[in-house]
Amino acid sequence: MSGVVMGHSHERRRPIWIGDDGRTVTVIDQRRLPHEVVFLDLRNVGDAVHAIQEMVVRGAPLIGVTGAYGMFLAALAAPAGNQGTGQLRQEASRLAAARPTAVNLAWAVERVLKAISTSSEPRERVRLALAAASAVVAEEVENCRRIGLHGLPILEALARAKGGKTVNILTHCNAGWLACVEYGTATAPIYAAFDRGIDVHVWVDETRPLNQGARLTAWELAEYGVPHTVITDNAGGHLMQRGQVDLVIVGSDRTTAAGDVANKIGTYLKALAARDNHIPFYVALPSSTFDWKVNDGIADIPIEERDPDEVRCVQGWDGQGQTHVRICPDASPAANFAFDVTPARLVTGLITERGICCATADDIRGMFPDKVK
Amino acid sequence: MSGVVMGHSHERRRPIWIGDDGRTVTVIDQRRLPHEVVFLDLRNVGDAVHAIQEMVVRGAPLIGVTGAYGMFLAALAAPAGNQGTGQLRQEASRLAAARPTAVNLAWAVERVLKAISTSSEPRERVRLALAAASAVVAEEVENCRRIGLHGLPILEALARAKGGKTVNILTHCNAGWLACVEYGTATAPIYAAFDRGIDVHVWVDETRPLNQGARLTAWELAEYGVPHTVITDNAGGHLMQRGQVDLVIVGSDRTTAAGDVANKIGTYLKALAARDNHIPFYVALPSSTFDWKVNDGIADIPIEERDPDEVRCVQGWDGQGQTHVRICPDASPAANFAFDVTPARLVTGLITERGICCATADDIRGMFPDKVK
Repeated sequence: MSGVVMGHSHERRRPIWIGDDGRTVTVIDQRRLPHEVVFLDLRNVGDAVHAIQEMVVRGAPLIGVTGAYGMFLAALAAPAGNQGTGQLRQEASRLAAARPTAVNLAWAVERVLKAISTSSEPRERVRLALAAASAVVAEEVENCRRIGLHGLPILEALARAKGGKTVNILTHCNAGWLACVEYGTATAPIYAAFDRGIDVHVWVDETRPLNQGARLTAWELAEYGVPHTVITDNAGGHLMQRGQVDLVIVGSDRTTAAGDVANKIGTYLKALAARDNHIPFYVALPSSTFDWKVNDGIADIPIEERDPDEVRCVQGWDGQGQTHVRICPDASPAANFAFDVTPARLVTGLITERGICCATADDIRGMFPDKVK
Repeated sequence: MSGVVMGHSHERRRPIWIGDDGRTVTVIDQRRLPHEVVFLDLRNVGDAVHAIQEMVVRGAPLIGVTGAYGMFLAALAAPAGNQGTGQLRQEASRLAAARPTAVNLAWAVERVLKAISTSSEPRERVRLALAAASAVVAEEVENCRRIGLHGLPILEALARAKGGKTVNILTHCNAGWLACVEYGTATAPIYAAFDRGIDVHVWVDETRPLNQGARLTAWELAEYGVPHTVITDNAGGHLMQRGQVDLVIVGSDRTTAAGDVANKIGTYLKALAARDNHIPFYVALPSSTFDWKVNDGIADIPIEERDPDEVRCVQGWDGQGQTHVRICPDASPAANFAFDVTPARLVTGLITERGICCATADDIRGMFPDKVK
């Protein structure tokens, strides 16, 4: 991987694209945001796996897209015939295993592998891989656009109910365009409402340990001009008690066929607070995030445990550059669970590319009859 | 104020005491823990107000004790007669207003002021102030010791129910001896159980924004040898869902006569998760923390809003010294609410110096008939 440091703005508003040479995949290094906008070139499957594991890229849809593009990089390196086929299968397994919780990754990798498998000729495989990966990208963009359109009426209704007063939305982690390709999932209805002149304000949970809210969602919203306020992960319940939150929207890393939602650790606590204060709690997700084989999220979704030093230390800008500070005693161990599961009973609705449905097996099946197994 | 840097250990296990000259109050500068143990001398009321506001000292009981000692410093400086009486009243108001949420502060300051008021002679006032402040300290120590004894059976019962397997306790913020004078409130039953050989393990919420859990509770527990693990504030719900928490104990900054509990921001979210997972949620508090004049905590307890930069930045150790790093874009505003209110309906019981009672007006009145107004 090689990196290029750019200025603080990024006109493209996409976190991933094919480089000008047609043989590399360029990504924004999301570990460096919001303080620096750095682009990294991924040149092989190892680079793509590293980018996913080290969270250079993150967010379920983007992890899927990176896996799809990773298979394109795999195709570039695979020899002809059976040897190449074996190699491609191995690379697909490696990519799919890079992170365990988001189901989009295995889904997207499998989809490109299947497309490649119709040929044993290297150049044709590359063409097929790029076409399949590009289709994944185009669909994710279109899905996010549609999530925005389907979610917009919720915000319009709240704005009407409040007589035009500010609609306050709370979100956790980053489910914006940085986590997807364009629009985002949780942010898509917010951007759509903002574009239509609705007076919105976003409470941005900082989202420890890696602060994707404070770093990424705040950066996205600031760049777009959407009014927002960063808060600690502890503050949401208090704001809800005091009537300062009208709506919670979050993304999802994996959603079961019965509507349980695995998302960034801490989401469950916000869902509990929303329920306790009669505030709607929506999850925005493209259907690639559904795991059709699983019903009980708490029993069956694997929860990634990451390096405890992500908890023991905090990364930030010290005025001169990015650095880490340790926040606890040297002797104290830490644990780092990356996701939690919000039971379907706490979810008001799922905002998908096909519309909004309840978080129940029946309603989900009704909206995706062609996808349910 | 002047400071002395000490080694990393602190044998005294008290956060405040009268200096050897008999005219200063020495405190541990809790902003510097766990990385450095620094003692600060408070020489006048201004120093005491500053120490409370800047959170050199924090925790409801310790804020009260600092207020009481602050009145001793006021007595040292007050002239004889009516002029001195007026000055003492002014200094009491200044001290009581230093932070708004903990009720112990006004209670302790008022108590010392009342004791002084029986004399107009400077030396006698100093003697009376020191005696009254020392009585507050002695009572808080004894109250915390009793809280430990009354809470111990809860841990013993859990240990028996688990057949001697580890009892996992989750706590939020720091309600240890650093927040009190000795033993702590929430930690008192934990220390008592640990001393009796019960196999305890503590999940320590880091407690953003100022990380009193990761910095102070982890340091206390590490110094005492109590097994513990630091987690983000987001993680508690997940741990409870997975059966990894047997008990939650927290402290309180102000408790209403009906049992609503104002405590560090984020406490309410843990209470919700405990309720959702059928886990007992106890609040440990000396009766000085009750506000007998208030019933509805959400309507009537003032919630301090602090400097947003405490949210936008994180303090820690960079390998050479303490420094701040900024975690969000320069352009992003933040909000910083210091406390939230956990409604009495979510509280399993209050552990007080007189025993355990339910968080209801009737039960509280039954235990403190002499104090209820």
